[in-house]
Amino acid sequence: MSNPTAAMLVIGDEILSGRTRDANMHYLASELTKHGIALQEVRVVSDDPNAITDAVRALSDAFTHVFTSGGIGPTHDDITAENVAAAFDRPIDVRADARAILEEHYTRTGLELNNARLRMARIPDGASLIENPISAAPGFTLENVHVMAGVPSIFKAMLAAVLPTLTGGAPMLSQTLQILRGEGDIAGPLSDLADRYPDLSFGSYPFSRDGVYGSNVVIRSTDGALLDAAMSELNRLFPE
Amino acid sequence: MSNPTAAMLVIGDEILSGRTRDANMHYLASELTKHGIALQEVRVVSDDPNAITDAVRALSDAFTHVFTSGGIGPTHDDITAENVAAAFDRPIDVRADARAILEEHYTRTGLELNNARLRMARIPDGASLIENPISAAPGFTLENVHVMAGVPSIFKAMLAAVLPTLTGGAPMLSQTLQILRGEGDIAGPLSDLADRYPDLSFGSYPFSRDGVYGSNVVIRSTDGALLDAAMSELNRLFPE
Repeated sequence: MSNPTAAMLVIGDEILSGRTRDANMHYLASELTKHGIALQEVRVVSDDPNAITDAVRALSDAFTHVFTSGGIGPTHDDITAENVAAAFDRPIDVRADARAILEEHYTRTGLELNNARLRMARIPDGASLIENPISAAPGFTLENVHVMAGVPSIFKAMLAAVLPTLTGGAPMLSQTLQILRGEGDIAGPLSDLADRYPDLSFGSYPFSRDGVYGSNVVIRSTDGALLDAAMSELNRLFPE
Repeated sequence: MSNPTAAMLVIGDEILSGRTRDANMHYLASELTKHGIALQEVRVVSDDPNAITDAVRALSDAFTHVFTSGGIGPTHDDITAENVAAAFDRPIDVRADARAILEEHYTRTGLELNNARLRMARIPDGASLIENPISAAPGFTLENVHVMAGVPSIFKAMLAAVLPTLTGGAPMLSQTLQILRGEGDIAGPLSDLADRYPDLSFGSYPFSRDGVYGSNVVIRSTDGALLDAAMSELNRLFPE
């Protein structure tokens, strides 16, 4: 598969402590799949400088794109921006273009652009800004790393600004057959079918609902005709 | 902080493609926090042998415990067990004790213990079994890696079997104050307070609801008295 690849890096003690649930992973995964970019890894790390820089370097090296979520607000525990800069050995400071965006926003809303809020105008050298239509403070793209907010509404808005600028691949198509039999009963024939279609991805995801065991079999490909052919065979193997 | 540490490894193309949402991370995070084990990293990787072995080695080296979720069923895409074994250079095959558990279960339920189901009795040399009271097929612990099912009900049951066997630390306590002001207004005083309590962890988690901006400030510690003192100061800084 030659589609571009991606990883996500979530920065947040609040998720690792169980206080909140991550809300952005599932959204990013769905949007990237539609855009033909294959999300291949997600990491959640704590609000720790080394954890952030190590993860940024590893993921930036391994994948076409990295999307980060969280840690770019005004408080002392928002340390993503400086550590993404550190991962690429770039200086970071308040930048005029980002400062101008905040000045305009806070003048309009009647709030003070204090030192804490000014932290949100710190942008690494060489980064380009990502627009934030909700609360103004921009994200940024440095190298292949897209640094975005953790608040879900802002994360979505920033992703909507970034995604159209990225080269996508052929959209990944998928079809699902729900089979109301235990996975152990379908595993043999399913494996044989997967062997005959080596270019397709076959997944089997078991569930139990009200005491009934079943499995969702998902076939994925960028080739719609091949997918249809395999799905027809799957339907013949496991008729209703 | 000297509490034991942990990482989670989620194996699953279905989460990375956006087809399903991970359901186990938040549960594991909450349970570990209660048990005094600090979850410090989560990785989600695809159903790829190298991705799994690389992550198992890295996380096993870095943290006291690793908990995996997913990929131990009977189908061809369930490749977690053999790749955890490979990460530690251990042989893996059908093991008598695990096979006996499956034989008893399938005899009782009248289902055939076919080759696909027998895959679930493959256990790495030297691993100990983790009981599965729901669908019998066991998980296992190899070195400091606890290999568990992805189906949430089974993941929970396996965690309930493993957790009491692990040495926990002092439970991490937390108190939260919801402040209905923008983060930029509270960041300065909050940072000063955090500086005066260097042994406590201070987090600020912004939200907007119905157009109102606010922040949940969370203070965490294993020391209840110190936590109470800091929380009293926080309440004085930001009265209702």
